[in-house]
Amino acid sequence: MRYYPDPSSNLDLSKLNGVIEEAFAEHARGSVQMPPKVYITLDQGDFRTMPGYIPSLGIAGVKIVNVHPGNPGRNLPTVMALTVILDIGTGVPVAILNATDLTDLRTGAGGAVAAKYLSPGRAVSLGLVGSGCQARAQIDAIGRELDIVEVKVWSRNEKNAEDFCSRYPDFDCRVASLRDACECDLLVTTTPSREPLIRDEWVHEGTHINAIGADAPGKEELDPAILIRASVFVDDPAQAVHSGEVNVPITNGRFSENMIAGTLGEVVIGKKRRKSASEITVFDSTGLAIQDLAIASLALQKQEGIDLAFP
Amino acid sequence: MRYYPDPSSNLDLSKLNGVIEEAFAEHARGSVQMPPKVYITLDQGDFRTMPGYIPSLGIAGVKIVNVHPGNPGRNLPTVMALTVILDIGTGVPVAILNATDLTDLRTGAGGAVAAKYLSPGRAVSLGLVGSGCQARAQIDAIGRELDIVEVKVWSRNEKNAEDFCSRYPDFDCRVASLRDACECDLLVTTTPSREPLIRDEWVHEGTHINAIGADAPGKEELDPAILIRASVFVDDPAQAVHSGEVNVPITNGRFSENMIAGTLGEVVIGKKRRKSASEITVFDSTGLAIQDLAIASLALQKQEGIDLAFP
Repeated sequence: MRYYPDPSSNLDLSKLNGVIEEAFAEHARGSVQMPPKVYITLDQGDFRTMPGYIPSLGIAGVKIVNVHPGNPGRNLPTVMALTVILDIGTGVPVAILNATDLTDLRTGAGGAVAAKYLSPGRAVSLGLVGSGCQARAQIDAIGRELDIVEVKVWSRNEKNAEDFCSRYPDFDCRVASLRDACECDLLVTTTPSREPLIRDEWVHEGTHINAIGADAPGKEELDPAILIRASVFVDDPAQAVHSGEVNVPITNGRFSENMIAGTLGEVVIGKKRRKSASEITVFDSTGLAIQDLAIASLALQKQEGIDLAFP
Repeated sequence: MRYYPDPSSNLDLSKLNGVIEEAFAEHARGSVQMPPKVYITLDQGDFRTMPGYIPSLGIAGVKIVNVHPGNPGRNLPTVMALTVILDIGTGVPVAILNATDLTDLRTGAGGAVAAKYLSPGRAVSLGLVGSGCQARAQIDAIGRELDIVEVKVWSRNEKNAEDFCSRYPDFDCRVASLRDACECDLLVTTTPSREPLIRDEWVHEGTHINAIGADAPGKEELDPAILIRASVFVDDPAQAVHSGEVNVPITNGRFSENMIAGTLGEVVIGKKRRKSASEITVFDSTGLAIQDLAIASLALQKQEGIDLAFP
């Protein structure tokens, strides 16, 4: 058994979107095992246990991930994760990965897969609502699939948006108002908002939206009217209904599970698709255990880490 | 974060039954979080993910445990386990424990708690059906609660029963026939049987039985007629119905969930009890995540292990 303290540092990023795409495809084919996330509620946060198995990648294991909103005040990340990988043939735990950065990367790669298949074109203007780690993971991964011709960034804290742009000198990147950021081909929302930020009238026909921020009951970033106009694709229906962008509108009756157009996996295998250039499409991401396993399979191609006695 | 490669070696066994008893009591009080075990099926075995939280012990985490029946042919244990403990206040993973031996010990301690409360007397003759690791864990833990005056051991392989007795020179221990082993006050069954080994007519009034072996659908050790005569206490109703001693008789209609007398936790807190000296009582053990957390809390009282960089 080996411990990987920093498995994202040597990851072959050129292969990342591909392995995440395969995980989504296998999900759509019904070829993976992925029971729903299990939540444990603590006083100051929660943690989620995410087991899974992808036979085609030969990988099985469990991610354990917390959400403690008060952590930044203690100089700790809000979200931290650990993934345990088991040998399929014997059940021996073979690897433990610090999966905090991997979680950001696999979420970014999921957004890139959605953008690859659902974007209205190959050359896109990108609107970013939120400018944190996940905004970076999205632009990095999307940039490996599409030609990003312009980036408009909004953050509640304008300084953060400026800092974001300074990290991307090669892009035509500028700080924008919320409304202006929505004037784009590809809109990526990555905030922890609990009320809609994006107004229906700001989103024009043909836009694709990666709705990333909502990952727990009560969170939402988009006016539900956008979801009603759009074709909404989810990563996993059960998780999306529970905690994705659609969770609040479903709870209050403005949207329903049968209005979901399909899964990203179905889009990847060609069973579902963008129907016209004028259609608005939404990818509602909650994050899947199989994404964690797929990125772990890539990380484990490097023989690194610290050897630990087991059994 | 620290890795504990051998946390059972320095465990304060005098405190073990007590901490396991507290976990069962807290379970009966509704003061723990313990979602059902989640199963992932692999080609040659399976693994189970067991998250939980015991506020009174201040411990939360996840055990991951496999069952691969072909492992002994590869010089590996059939069952291996790893427990990840998170800090409750911040969600940081603070400890990873090799939990293979801890799993045996916590199951033995659960049996001792059942024997303490349900045994017909303080001085007992002990019948053991099965003579493996779990038989040893049971006798070791029960010996800390009751005065064991005689031990009769049956194993399918008589040599194993002889070896078992030679490990316990301080006990009046002898190899017995299956029928003779059942002639006792306290019967402990620890086999992987998939058909009843213990006949109804062999079990006399007043016997307490720890039915430990059945831990997966299809497994059973006792003639269902025994369950019908007895008061059957389970560790957790949902797990017992799914995979405990009662699972086969419930599936084929000879027993039903509403015939379960209660939980071991309810016995510990005095809500349920043995009703008479002549009653047959059964403890149906499937193994709880909170037992794993309770024994981990004891193991972590020793500052040992290997420091691993996280986050």
